[in-house]
This record gives sequence, C-alpha cells and structure tokens, in this order.
Amino acid sequence: MNIKDYIASVPDFPKKGIIFRDITPLLQNGDAFNTVIDILAANAKMQGATLIAGPEARGFIFGAPVAAKLGLGFVAIRKPGKLPREQITLDYELEYGKNTLCIHTDAIKPTDKVFIIDDLLATGGTANAACKLVEKAGGKVAGLGFVIDLIDLNGKKLLKDYNVITLAEYEGE
Amino acid sequence: MNIKDYIASVPDFPKKGIIFRDITPLLQNGDAFNTVIDILAANAKMQGATLIAGPEARGFIFGAPVAAKLGLGFVAIRKPGKLPREQITLDYELEYGKNTLCIHTDAIKPTDKVFIIDDLLATGGTANAACKLVEKAGGKVAGLGFVIDLIDLNGKKLLKDYNVITLAEYEGE
Repeated sequence: MNIKDYIASVPDFPKKGIIFRDITPLLQNGDAFNTVIDILAANAKMQGATLIAGPEARGFIFGAPVAAKLGLGFVAIRKPGKLPREQITLDYELEYGKNTLCIHTDAIKPTDKVFIIDDLLATGGTANAACKLVEKAGGKVAGLGFVIDLIDLNGKKLLKDYNVITLAEYEGE
Repeated sequence: MNIKDYIASVPDFPKKGIIFRDITPLLQNGDAFNTVIDILAANAKMQGATLIAGPEARGFIFGAPVAAKLGLGFVAIRKPGKLPREQITLDYELEYGKNTLCIHTDAIKPTDKVFIIDDLLATGGTANAACKLVEKAGGKVAGLGFVIDLIDLNGKKLLKDYNVITLAEYEGE
C-alpha cells in the first residue's frame, strides 16, 4: 500500500501558495486507515510506550486508535479552556503569534513513557511543545509518530533528541 | 467495570451551576478506555455499520478507535474552515447562536450505513444535525453511540427515530 494514494493534495488551502495535504481519503478507507494505525502502534510498542498522547484535533484521530489497539491510555493534549481540572500548560511560539498546550496535572505519571502522535509534521513547533509538556508533567517521551512529513520544513531537525517516525514524506513545500 | 468510576464530575465548569462530566480519567486508563471502545464497536457492528463518524473534537477520540477496531473508515465531522475540498454542510440552532457541521462531498457513499459516535449526549442538537448531515450526503444512519447521557436534557427524545446507545447516565443537570 502506498499511503500517498490516500492523501489528497489541495492547492491554495488554507491560503494561496500552500498545498494542503488532506488525510480524509485515508480515514474514509478502512483498510488504509487500519494499516496506518497498525504501523504507528507497532512503533509505539517498539519504543516501550506506556501511554499515547495526541494534540487537538487531528492528533486525536490517529492517537486514540493507537492507544486502543495497544490497550494503553490516551492523553488528549488540548487547547486552552477545554479542560476542567488543575492543569499543566506550555506556551510556545508559532510563525504568527503564540499557542498554548494543556493537559490535566494527573494525566501523566513519572513512570510513563509517552508516545506522541499527530497527522502531520511541519516545522515541529507543536510537536516539540508537546514533548516539553510531557517532560514538564514528569513523564518521558518514548517517541513521536506522524502520518505526513513536510520535509523542507525540517521538523525532524527540531525533534532531533527524540525518536521520530513519519510514513509519507513530501518535498517542495 | 463501572464506567462512572472513570468520569470526573467537576462543579461550576465551564460556568457556575454546570457540572462538567470529564472523560479524561477514562481515556487515561487503558483497560477502561478499551472496554468502552469495545462496547461501542460491538453496537456499531450489531447495527450493520459500514462507516463510523464523529464530530470534532471529542467525537474523534471515541469514533476513530471504533472505526479502527472494526476495520471501517472514519468520517471526521468538522467545524467550518477545516476541510479543503468540496463540502456538504448543515446549519443548526444551539441554545446560544448557530453552528455548522461539515464533511467532504465524497465522504459518504449512498450504500453507507453510518454509526455516529460522540462522548456526550446532552440536548442532542449536534447529534441530530450530524444525522441530518449524513442523510443529506445520501447515507443512512445506522445508529448513534455516546459514553455519557445527561438524561434530563432529553437527547434521546430528539433522536427517537434512530438507534441510540449510551453507557453512563446522569440525572439532575
């Protein structure tokens, strides 16, 4: 199976000059979706993950099934204002402005090895912030898995201290 | 297993007088999370589902694992501005203002029986809109599954034309 056969490339979205890599055809195909979940789950297991985490919202679509497949828990890394109890937060810089990631204080135990999953690796800013959030909460980062890597944006370089797997690479972004 | 043991009840969130039912302890426990996914998956299978759908964002956390468990595709029902290609949309009224649900035009085939999953059933407004969106796209609704039912808000009454399963009921909202 070639994963790219299930990713639509949409020019000029969300703005002119950007090619949007759309994973919805992959999700809609049960065999392709399940294959991707299996690959990510095998990697999380290989890295000794005890817990899976994924950032809102597309990280939930791949992270939660990997957790269920491995019988592990899932930590939804959320935007501000969504979680009701005491939280650990991490602010980080984006190309345009700032962002904040949030988890509950009880989400991660000191013995946890957390595998972080998202649909797409671009500059790695959000993924790197997710790693720092896991570490701030006292856990270890077991590794990271992404379906898509926009390789010209050098996300893997920013994440060089971590084990990273990506399944479909795109150049020329 | 009592699912309610894994749901935190948080008073006065997001505003005074509301008890927020927080599913993050359930997600964080691998056994409890997997049990809930298994129950929802068994029901989706029993209803003959060929496709699973879930609304952004917590619907992704339960819907995508059910799809992966059954080897089915998953349709992410999204808020406006997230999808890059031609869409089918549905506007609906909320207690305070309006909302819109979106899927790609190619997301659902006329032969599809779609099982819709979300974390919580309140008034049923979003779930009912999701059903109408599936039908507008030409599919059939196989049923709906929710982890939590706030029964005083009568969501099941609004969804009376559909098969609905809920796993944990709360009164006195």
